[in-house]
Amino acid sequence: MNATPTVTVIGDGQLARMMHTEAIELGVNLRLLAGARDSSAGQVIADVVLGDYRNLDDLRKVAEGVVTFDHEHVPTEHLHALIDDGIAVHPGPEALVNAQDKLVMREKLQEIGAPVPPFAGIQSVADADAFWDSVDGEVCLKATRGGYDGHGVWFPKSKEELEGLVEKLLGENVPLMGEQKVPFVRELSALVARRPSGEVRPWRVVESVQRDGICVEAIAPAPGMDAGLADYCQSLAVKIADELGVTGVLAVELFEYLDEDGMPQVAVNELAMRPHNTGHWTQDGCVTSQFEQHLRAVQDWPLGDVDQTAPVTVMANVLGGDEDPELPMAQRVREVMERYPQVKVHLYGKTYRAGRKIGHVNVSGQSVVKTREIARSAAHFLVTAQWL
Amino acid sequence: MNATPTVTVIGDGQLARMMHTEAIELGVNLRLLAGARDSSAGQVIADVVLGDYRNLDDLRKVAEGVVTFDHEHVPTEHLHALIDDGIAVHPGPEALVNAQDKLVMREKLQEIGAPVPPFAGIQSVADADAFWDSVDGEVCLKATRGGYDGHGVWFPKSKEELEGLVEKLLGENVPLMGEQKVPFVRELSALVARRPSGEVRPWRVVESVQRDGICVEAIAPAPGMDAGLADYCQSLAVKIADELGVTGVLAVELFEYLDEDGMPQVAVNELAMRPHNTGHWTQDGCVTSQFEQHLRAVQDWPLGDVDQTAPVTVMANVLGGDEDPELPMAQRVREVMERYPQVKVHLYGKTYRAGRKIGHVNVSGQSVVKTREIARSAAHFLVTAQWL
Ligand SMILES: Nc1ncnc2c1ncn2[C@@H]1O[C@H](COP(=O)(O)OP(=O)(O)O)[C@@H](O)[C@H]1O
Ligand SMILES: Nc1ncnc2c1ncn2[C@@H]1O[C@H](COP(=O)(O)OP(=O)(O)O)[C@@H](O)[C@H]1O
Ligand SMILES: [Mg+2]
Ligand SMILES: [Mg+2]
Repeated sequence: MNATPTVTVIGDGQLARMMHTEAIELGVNLRLLAGARDSSAGQVIADVVLGDYRNLDDLRKVAEGVVTFDHEHVPTEHLHALIDDGIAVHPGPEALVNAQDKLVMREKLQEIGAPVPPFAGIQSVADADAFWDSVDGEVCLKATRGGYDGHGVWFPKSKEELEGLVEKLLGENVPLMGEQKVPFVRELSALVARRPSGEVRPWRVVESVQRDGICVEAIAPAPGMDAGLADYCQSLAVKIADELGVTGVLAVELFEYLDEDGMPQVAVNELAMRPHNTGHWTQDGCVTSQFEQHLRAVQDWPLGDVDQTAPVTVMANVLGGDEDPELPMAQRVREVMERYPQVKVHLYGKTYRAGRKIGHVNVSGQSVVKTREIARSAAHFLVTAQWL
Repeated sequence: MNATPTVTVIGDGQLARMMHTEAIELGVNLRLLAGARDSSAGQVIADVVLGDYRNLDDLRKVAEGVVTFDHEHVPTEHLHALIDDGIAVHPGPEALVNAQDKLVMREKLQEIGAPVPPFAGIQSVADADAFWDSVDGEVCLKATRGGYDGHGVWFPKSKEELEGLVEKLLGENVPLMGEQKVPFVRELSALVARRPSGEVRPWRVVESVQRDGICVEAIAPAPGMDAGLADYCQSLAVKIADELGVTGVLAVELFEYLDEDGMPQVAVNELAMRPHNTGHWTQDGCVTSQFEQHLRAVQDWPLGDVDQTAPVTVMANVLGGDEDPELPMAQRVREVMERYPQVKVHLYGKTYRAGRKIGHVNVSGQSVVKTREIARSAAHFLVTAQWL
């Protein structure tokens, strides 16, 4: 008996697409629940079932082998129903809720002793006012659920602005929380993969460069990082994966800030339980990519080596700009390849739209400055058809 | 306009399958002409047309964008017909015939001054006898067309054996040639990619370890190779690609032998015009894999860097043995991953059959001996479910 193992992925975006790349090589059948055949993943995968991830019947129809996700939006009760049917779901609903609900996550992290900024749930304007006072007006207001790429995060400049926002959002039934606004010097990301049977492997900590709440670059490893702090970040990510029972890839987004003594410290921002934008560099800079590792982990297969294959690898996102240049994308790709034979281009088969992640580039090299320059230049050209 | 570029691949084996892996990331739509949906490539590709590569109507039905191949068996006249229809075919029929017919190839290589062993076409037993005498009985008899993995190659030990073989094969209409049997010390492989507009990039020369006419291992770069000879092999491969007008990946299989002065020399064995088994190591040991490079080359896109990402990378084939072990393949993969987290497993979705290529492993490392040991051990376990 040589039955091909199957992993069912719920969600049809670029993460599922890039999982397929690795599934092909591993000899794993990747089965997809897609909203549309022409979605990013639906275009390239053979075994596609069309359906809605919010519909339990569709989930039941597609589920085969191990079930995992391209996003965190599957309702918890459906995941429990699948598990009751005897299906393996990774990550499981108890872990996943910490990636779905930022308030639940904050409470859980506090409970296990992970560093988090001061926070509070906000159910009323009075709650908001009290929180404002407690953090001296350094407020970051967040939707606890449904946010992404900075949608769902606000920085009110005055108490009045906060009150107005809270009133409006609560009126729209947006569940809210407040956090202290962290005066971070940069953002980091600590990725690990964990198997149901317990093995955990952390990748090197990377710097995640954000613009307007969207990740634009990741630099691996995070340049100039204090070695002790880097170790701490890795062990923190391992601890979170263990204590929350995460299976598959876990991304721990971190703030690096300076404490009163001017020493670098970290606090957790949020968690993602799937391959993450800040891990795309592993496709071209690491022995085992996050997509392969995720497929291994959710099947409880032994994890692969996470050694880097170059001194530095930089990922730069290709984010749709205000307008799609006339020069066709394939022609832009050719020009980038002409100028930079070392650039690895990854495209998601998505149409151009402002702010939309339509691809990324990975570049490996010896020096952070030079490698970053090339990655930025290539990504910029793919977006604008102009050289920086 | 952001129309997705399409590459149509004729042939549904593992080479097409591994091209899809790269096509996904490049944002290239890979369209496949497959004999069966459950073929190695047909299993994993979304855009599949079922049909027969020997049937011109099927070829016309599937052809979109640039047409390329997973094997060299498409009839030349059909390729000309497609070109007459206005379709780009890479490699083109004039080049490809040199990978289809070993006698045509030998004549062409001799014409351009590439080193080849003495050879002759064999149309009769008398031809065979004359050839036997001309090379002092050091005869390698070959089918000029249709051979693979050592099927179609014979080493007769006596003139009588040769005569018997030739009589039998000519009776079966097998077109034949004779070559001098080269007393090689090892086999090498020089891969290059070439674009229609002329750019050519050679990879490092690798050692190709054969057993019973089948490639079992490739070691990149070829260990202990004379630097001058390695350069010569690369420039020879470039010259062949240029002079034959090859587009896409070209593999030049070489014999390394010692001349009368005991100096290492090379002679060409045969050519393949597609990604080649001796180039699989590039998936995990090189900035640009042969599958990505092939897709770039056939579309006339700029070629990628061919730098190695590790001091040595060893590929070992997973070749079906006499019987399929009881332990399921997925379980064998787990055990290999458990023991060797650095091993990259590639499986083709094929059923087990004696001598059949069902997958390969790639391992990168510092030392040839150690890396080779791991690759062999892993491949052996995947075949036998036993540790060496
Ligand atoms: N407490 C905070 N203090 C300062 N900046 C923050 C805080 N929380 C979020 N941000 C900024 O907003 C970005 C998006 O917030 P995040 O909670 O990660 O939302 P999303 O789900 O959209 O990624 C972060 O990457 C960071 O740049
Ligand atoms: N002239 C020769 N002298 C010695 N060995 C040869 C010769 N030709 C082929 N061989 C051996 O047979 C193997 C298969 O021959 P080849 O022509 O490459 O056929 P195939 O198309 O099956 O790969 C070679 O890899 C080599 O080991
Ligand atoms: Mg975030
Ligand atoms: Mg051969």
